Amino acid sequence: MKILLIECNDELGIIARVTTVLAKFKLNLIEFHEFADEETNQFYMRAGVTGDFDQAEVEKEILEVLPKGSNFKFVEGRKKKVVIMVTKENHCIGDLLLRHYTGNLDMEILGVIGNHPDCKDLTEKFDIPWFEISHKEIDRTKHEELIIKKIKELDPDFILLAKFMRILSPEFVGEFPNKIINIHHSFLPSFIGANPYKQAYKRGVKIIGATAHFVNNDLDEGPIIYQDVIRVDHSHSALEMSRSGRDVEKRVFTKGIKLVLRDRVFVNNNRTIVFA
Amino acid sequence: MKILLIECNDELGIIARVTTVLAKFKLNLIEFHEFADEETNQFYMRAGVTGDFDQAEVEKEILEVLPKGSNFKFVEGRKKKVVIMVTKENHCIGDLLLRHYTGNLDMEILGVIGNHPDCKDLTEKFDIPWFEISHKEIDRTKHEELIIKKIKELDPDFILLAKFMRILSPEFVGEFPNKIINIHHSFLPSFIGANPYKQAYKRGVKIIGATAHFVNNDLDEGPIIYQDVIRVDHSHSALEMSRSGRDVEKRVFTKGIKLVLRDRVFVNNNRTIVFA
Amino acid sequence: MKILLIECNDELGIIARVTTVLAKFKLNLIEFHEFADEETNQFYMRAGVTGDFDQAEVEKEILEVLPKGSNFKFVEGRKKKVVIMVTKENHCIGDLLLRHYTGNLDMEILGVIGNHPDCKDLTEKFDIPWFEISHKEIDRTKHEELIIKKIKELDPDFILLAKFMRILSPEFVGEFPNKIINIHHSFLPSFIGANPYKQAYKRGVKIIGATAHFVNNDLDEGPIIYQDVIRVDHSHSALEMSRSGRDVEKRVFTKGIKLVLRDRVFVNNNRTIVFA
Amino acid sequence: MKILLIECNDELGIIARVTTVLAKFKLNLIEFHEFADEETNQFYMRAGVTGDFDQAEVEKEILEVLPKGSNFKFVEGRKKKVVIMVTKENHCIGDLLLRHYTGNLDMEILGVIGNHPDCKDLTEKFDIPWFEISHKEIDRTKHEELIIKKIKELDPDFILLAKFMRILSPEFVGEFPNKIINIHHSFLPSFIGANPYKQAYKRGVKIIGATAHFVNNDLDEGPIIYQDVIRVDHSHSALEMSRSGRDVEKRVFTKGIKLVLRDRVFVNNNRTIVFA
Repeated sequence: MKILLIECNDELGIIARVTTVLAKFKLNLIEFHEFADEETNQFYMRAGVTGDFDQAEVEKEILEVLPKGSNFKFVEGRKKKVVIMVTKENHCIGDLLLRHYTGNLDMEILGVIGNHPDCKDLTEKFDIPWFEISHKEIDRTKHEELIIKKIKELDPDFILLAKFMRILSPEFVGEFPNKIINIHHSFLPSFIGANPYKQAYKRGVKIIGATAHFVNNDLDEGPIIYQDVIRVDHSHSALEMSRSGRDVEKRVFTKGIKLVLRDRVFVNNNRTIVFA
Repeated sequence: MKILLIECNDELGIIARVTTVLAKFKLNLIEFHEFADEETNQFYMRAGVTGDFDQAEVEKEILEVLPKGSNFKFVEGRKKKVVIMVTKENHCIGDLLLRHYTGNLDMEILGVIGNHPDCKDLTEKFDIPWFEISHKEIDRTKHEELIIKKIKELDPDFILLAKFMRILSPEFVGEFPNKIINIHHSFLPSFIGANPYKQAYKRGVKIIGATAHFVNNDLDEGPIIYQDVIRVDHSHSALEMSRSGRDVEKRVFTKGIKLVLRDRVFVNNNRTIVFA
Repeated sequence: MKILLIECNDELGIIARVTTVLAKFKLNLIEFHEFADEETNQFYMRAGVTGDFDQAEVEKEILEVLPKGSNFKFVEGRKKKVVIMVTKENHCIGDLLLRHYTGNLDMEILGVIGNHPDCKDLTEKFDIPWFEISHKEIDRTKHEELIIKKIKELDPDFILLAKFMRILSPEFVGEFPNKIINIHHSFLPSFIGANPYKQAYKRGVKIIGATAHFVNNDLDEGPIIYQDVIRVDHSHSALEMSRSGRDVEKRVFTKGIKLVLRDRVFVNNNRTIVFA
Repeated sequence: MKILLIECNDELGIIARVTTVLAKFKLNLIEFHEFADEETNQFYMRAGVTGDFDQAEVEKEILEVLPKGSNFKFVEGRKKKVVIMVTKENHCIGDLLLRHYTGNLDMEILGVIGNHPDCKDLTEKFDIPWFEISHKEIDRTKHEELIIKKIKELDPDFILLAKFMRILSPEFVGEFPNKIINIHHSFLPSFIGANPYKQAYKRGVKIIGATAHFVNNDLDEGPIIYQDVIRVDHSHSALEMSRSGRDVEKRVFTKGIKLVLRDRVFVNNNRTIVFA
């Protein structure tokens, strides 16, 4: 199966014209999702197709039936390539490494970059390259330059911040637009910033959560991919919330990453369209 | 908006041919869902369309592009008509009457048939016709005949069993195929039959549920529309489970009915396709 | 069953001393919950007891074994008395009236106060007194005075804001400390203030929620009693979120009220202890 | 903190007498749960206590205040010892090994017994002893004897069946009463036996689940510890349900094990009391 992704201005008859091209080349439509956003007049489509076809020819004809300025592509079945970035906590990266090992996450891990040595042992257990780039004794700009250099060498499709606890500069983020996925340990937009579990404890909330989102230049304000929550009660201290929160963090992060790896997520300004 | 519903044998190019007809008549596709069931080779489609069009002409052209023996129809926005059947418990019918009153359930209630008088007062508060058809002093066949006669007079699209606690005969069910919706007070297929909460207590389950389903001639075995669950623990007696269960029963029943009223449910033998 | 509620400074042996008094009078402990808050050194206890006993004598002995300045009381099984306040929306009050009618909410409704006439018909269907106190042509102070006067006449245990859409002044709130329960149509502290569904839509969240809380003088900042959430996606407009949100609003409000009616909620500054 | 566990016939004043002993020795009660089962007249209590005390003396006095034939013990903070048994699937054991490594599961893994070699590599990555005991070319009785011998050598507190796909004989189960924990890939009692996902697909259910339970001699009928569910729809084949089910399986298994490791689970015939 190949996936056809289309993003264009909405107008009458797009689905008919595109599916007519697909039928002409005898492609079977296995999955089909579309969404037209009224507010921005954007059209989004994701179709899973099978068949024996000349992709260049199909693309040529689809291009002809779409409005000018459209984005579209066939995504091959090839695995996405990722780089993981970590600091000290190992629960999120552990889940990614294990699922990768058991065949549950369909991606190629090019390497793990850590600014502390804590996750080295776990990474190497799974035979994944480990790159330690410490922030000590250098300034932020220099540190980010070293990381950017390493990422560009590795050339991933996506960068996964698996509890990377340093704030990235606009320059860094600007290098990888809509390619950086972060897990935030709160149900955004509640408790933006540092120590969300402490904030949650103080406010006396009865539910806490986690948010997987693309990173843009507003801290904790990028397009949200996936969220989930768990119940807490008066007997949970901030520390216990933080421990309980780890499970929902890794579950949300993994689920968000799966959606992106399967080309189910489009970004429309600060919002996502997710064909789940 | 009108809803176009199609059910036919699956073959290559159906979506293209149908959407091309729609585009030719300048219909806007607002919602679109499709599913091809590999096992039975059936194709299902639901499309919400807007525009100014001659329905007969569109239907004529759609008929031409579909395989022989297809089922298809445009569903007007008109409200579905329903008859509700009850015995004694009033939580499910109460929820339906209240949501109908507040505009949350888009249906016309033609009347309520009860074999006991318990729900009369509540029904009449909401100015809905009440028909009491007692089973006392008559046999089952006679009782069902009286109910069938009343239903046929009222001529509903659907019959909602809001805790109607008598088992319907195959003859009764055969009169209204895929038109009777029941709420069963367990997470089917667990605890089929009588006293599911007592069964659940005895088995020591940690979750109980409810199931909205179409009624066919196998008791509690019709196509499932919607299910949901709640947690229970060792401190719940069978009676307390039954009380807690009422909320999930009415929530599931109402949700299942909403899906059917909005033409989101197809029946494929003993399974449903639900375009939620 | 009577409920014994204790709130006092924490110290060693409280449970032993209190339960020894209860055992001396041959009271059976049917339910038992306790919590010691380390941060504030407060102890909370709720016990359901049965038996044939002289309450005054038991109270006298319990008083002797508790630290000075303790709060404790036996709560009789009597129903709590409530006044409901509404503006225009009828889904929350409808749920309360219906559950009251079907015996699912164990409270006495003394009356409904509305500043618009919209909920009059529904209230009177259920034979509950309706008091219309319009805010038109009078200032806020005068309006609140009229409402306070009516509430004091009725003398409820709790005041339920079932979508009362006017902000209450500190003077009003000060009259009824820890007695006013509000339903806020967001998952607090996200989207405080007006139009939370519009804010949620703009932020592109994947989950929305509702919060039942006591009202204090910080808008939407009182102690949280109960919260719940539902999933939404890109296809939900702000209006559709608001419609979907109504179900979670009424579910959360009703659940929060039930917890309070059963004396399961203590307030400790801005947080609640909930013995669920 | 030490945990005091009590299981005895219910009678008046037990809590008072036990907590009075604890207070006499100046033990702080940090956590406290109790439950009296009316049907069987059994009393269960779990208390977390801190303080500097002579355990033998406290035990002596508690023994004196409990009914004859009571079960009670102080559980030290020591880690429980476990043996894991597997066949081919590695998602459940993977989760256990990873959580053990990251400090999230407070247990000592004495070894992993597999009847196939599939999980050897993963086990050894985490430096856990691997014991392969193939069932090939020997009969069931002989195979079980070899496993029993190995388990007795290792002497664990619990045996975790992490997708061990062979049915254990009554003799095997009888050796380790209330010590064997299994994960069943359905929401019991639905779909007992083989191929639950296939059964679930055929029945057209909208929710599937998993169940962690103690093993007794009725297949899939032991006391249930924990259950959870996920939603599925018409688009899930039996195979896709099985894939989606893996996540809920491992989540439920891990949660059930955590409850047992923390001494929160009592068994009362075929039901559990879980102080969560």
